[in-house]
Amino acid sequence: MKSEYLELKRACYEANMELPNLGLVVYTFGNVSAVNREKAVFAIKPSGLPYKDLKPEDIVIVDYDNQVVEGKMRPSSDTKTHAFLYKHWQKIGGICHTHSTYAVSWAQSQMDIPIFGTTHADHNTKDIPCAPPMSDELIAGDYEHMTGQQILDCFSEKNLSYEEVEMILIGNHGPFTWGKNAQKAVYNSRVLEEIARMAYLTLQINPNAARLKEALIQKHYERKHGEGAYYGQEGC
Amino acid sequence: MKSEYLELKRACYEANMELPNLGLVVYTFGNVSAVNREKAVFAIKPSGLPYKDLKPEDIVIVDYDNQVVEGKMRPSSDTKTHAFLYKHWQKIGGICHTHSTYAVSWAQSQMDIPIFGTTHADHNTKDIPCAPPMSDELIAGDYEHMTGQQILDCFSEKNLSYEEVEMILIGNHGPFTWGKNAQKAVYNSRVLEEIARMAYLTLQINPNAARLKEALIQKHYERKHGEGAYYGQEGC
Amino acid sequence: MKSEYLELKRACYEANMELPNLGLVVYTFGNVSAVNREKAVFAIKPSGLPYKDLKPEDIVIVDYDNQVVEGKMRPSSDTKTHAFLYKHWQKIGGICHTHSTYAVSWAQSQMDIPIFGTTHADHNTKDIPCAPPMSDELIAGDYEHMTGQQILDCFSEKNLSYEEVEMILIGNHGPFTWGKNAQKAVYNSRVLEEIARMAYLTLQINPNAARLKEALIQKHYERKHGEGAYYGQEGC
Amino acid sequence: MKSEYLELKRACYEANMELPNLGLVVYTFGNVSAVNREKAVFAIKPSGLPYKDLKPEDIVIVDYDNQVVEGKMRPSSDTKTHAFLYKHWQKIGGICHTHSTYAVSWAQSQMDIPIFGTTHADHNTKDIPCAPPMSDELIAGDYEHMTGQQILDCFSEKNLSYEEVEMILIGNHGPFTWGKNAQKAVYNSRVLEEIARMAYLTLQINPNAARLKEALIQKHYERKHGEGAYYGQEGC
Repeated sequence: MKSEYLELKRACYEANMELPNLGLVVYTFGNVSAVNREKAVFAIKPSGLPYKDLKPEDIVIVDYDNQVVEGKMRPSSDTKTHAFLYKHWQKIGGICHTHSTYAVSWAQSQMDIPIFGTTHADHNTKDIPCAPPMSDELIAGDYEHMTGQQILDCFSEKNLSYEEVEMILIGNHGPFTWGKNAQKAVYNSRVLEEIARMAYLTLQINPNAARLKEALIQKHYERKHGEGAYYGQEGC
Repeated sequence: MKSEYLELKRACYEANMELPNLGLVVYTFGNVSAVNREKAVFAIKPSGLPYKDLKPEDIVIVDYDNQVVEGKMRPSSDTKTHAFLYKHWQKIGGICHTHSTYAVSWAQSQMDIPIFGTTHADHNTKDIPCAPPMSDELIAGDYEHMTGQQILDCFSEKNLSYEEVEMILIGNHGPFTWGKNAQKAVYNSRVLEEIARMAYLTLQINPNAARLKEALIQKHYERKHGEGAYYGQEGC
Repeated sequence: MKSEYLELKRACYEANMELPNLGLVVYTFGNVSAVNREKAVFAIKPSGLPYKDLKPEDIVIVDYDNQVVEGKMRPSSDTKTHAFLYKHWQKIGGICHTHSTYAVSWAQSQMDIPIFGTTHADHNTKDIPCAPPMSDELIAGDYEHMTGQQILDCFSEKNLSYEEVEMILIGNHGPFTWGKNAQKAVYNSRVLEEIARMAYLTLQINPNAARLKEALIQKHYERKHGEGAYYGQEGC
Repeated sequence: MKSEYLELKRACYEANMELPNLGLVVYTFGNVSAVNREKAVFAIKPSGLPYKDLKPEDIVIVDYDNQVVEGKMRPSSDTKTHAFLYKHWQKIGGICHTHSTYAVSWAQSQMDIPIFGTTHADHNTKDIPCAPPMSDELIAGDYEHMTGQQILDCFSEKNLSYEEVEMILIGNHGPFTWGKNAQKAVYNSRVLEEIARMAYLTLQINPNAARLKEALIQKHYERKHGEGAYYGQEGC
């Protein structure tokens, strides 16, 4: 089985298989993709295939216009959302979508997740945005394509940078996350789930809990991501 | 040990063994059955046997009138409920009953589970019905038989189709689910538990959370189950 | 290592080792004992020994007056409570004490656990009693001995039978459970934890949730424990 | 690879590896250190290294003035907090920092954890303190160093002894725990997480739950830690 996409499929496969291990999906609820910018294609999980049955060769290669380039199976039903984001956000290398419990519960609440602590600020400086459900007209149209548009619109309206905030909740649906590669996108899904759970518990313990103050937001974000960052190892 | 029901017993056994693996039962709390429509019998877990001790040959074969056709052990105490449903709902192939934590908690609350998101709409378009507890007269009578009647009455009163909504909560008791086969019935129990958990969390985060709007309910259900469904692989 | 208590120690050891497997204890939080009525002694876990280090030969043999009969280690700090119960309740064969999360949380709330559903009624027909904290004088006295008295007093005041209700919460402390043998005592601790969790969730979903009605309480308890019981296998 | 710190690194490594096993960390969220008082150095986890990749030789040796004594990797970004505590609290042998779910949620609520039961009193007699966030000036300065100062100030203001209360919450951040060695510091993090979870659940079940009364606090603490302690084995 010769293919010029073996490495891309492997990276996509491994990132997908992280999801059940991390407790982020049951059955077929979720999908991860990995892009190859030079070839302008991305690898994505086939639709409706249980993770326990997934093999690297099942991964489907698709271009930014949703055309299957290689693969015998039908790609994820969310493929058009992935394609839309890859087309518009040139610097992302991977995308992850799950129905993880706490992130979905916030999405079903149609509420942004407030930044309550340093666990959140270690990853970005904003409340995690929750995009409002799209209009009935758009739903009836090219739904998954418009989900990509919905994400872009939400980031535009809230004046967010996709390079800083690598996660969003789609109202009444669930989370999408992304990053420099598929592995980082999955990492962000796991982090989002934990942030969502902690924020939920915080409001149960103290309904009047205050947002993290700006000085701490900046301090924690900068020590990990700023110019003088000193978190982690050199070159990591 | 010759038997014309070996395959049926095996399918029933394997579906039962999924329950502890999926975290849906402790000890003996639950049972799955699988029907053979041609022979008009179903296979069901023996009563009160811990899952860790269960073997395929322990599975009991019963007809629609609750008579044991094959097997040395006493069938599940809920056998009459299974028989009733198989008799009245010709298109189901498997039934599952558990005492899973979140589904039971909604049942104990005597509340339908509102449809809050696409995770729910991917499986059906209605609130998950909770049947009110039966009258004292019926409880004192043929209780497990009448539990089947209770389920049918609830679907009739709420104008639901058992082919679309493959799950119900029995008030103060717990969930029953079904499907084209035993494996699908178990799948539905796992999905119901997740939906129940997410709906609980949603109401904790936002007590005024709104039901999913109709356009999204239809979109998600149709893309997976409608005529032009494009979720999953061809023929799956 | 000759001993006339090898079998008793083994039964006690195995019941203790169930606790971490069932998620009911962390570190050293809990203890199980098993009685031999003929010899009028019981076997109990040594105090403060982590479960991962526990071996059958570490189990200590104690009589009903708290005297160590065999064993090199100090018995559980709760030994006097076990001894007291064995002395006063002739028909029990095992006792289990844990600090399991949900049972402790109800104990810290100083509230009985209401009987909300059939999962509860399958095991007994009463709210799970929570004994109020003992007086300062008794605490300063023979505390663990008086904990036994506290349990008896609570059952007496609430007119409960220890043969039916095999579990109690000690206010601000945690659960004690018992049964015909040590294994059943552990089973009851696991069941109590699940009942406690479901009752907590039920009240979160519906703060006005009603107790299970009497007809259902009796039906479920009787079908499992009554004269005409048909749950489980003959002779089990 | 010769080193005079092999044993210290090994102890630090093993304590760190307990964190993912105990469910207290995901990815790189947390760090444990172990001190050698004679050599006046401590061993600490490298910054940003996933636990699954951690090896004993990666552990970094640092002195009380934050200077790396041995090791190729950058030490934890929280190193200065550890150094500060080792310098000021002569009797501690290990320190642990995590972002465990329930402890962080209380920290994000900026609330002390009330002492509601004996599980808590078995470990100390006080509410678990939550230090208020530091001033913007201090955050902008030597943040991790000042986190140590923040901890000392909180203990001073609340008149607490670090030898009795071996845990604190940093407001909006998360828990630090310590003990006679690194293993005990990790033990305290696990215990704190359980206490935090039980206190949360207690307030959900009974918002008016009362603190444990003083006689029980003293009784449980003294039987485990007092002069006449009888919990555990001699010399343990």
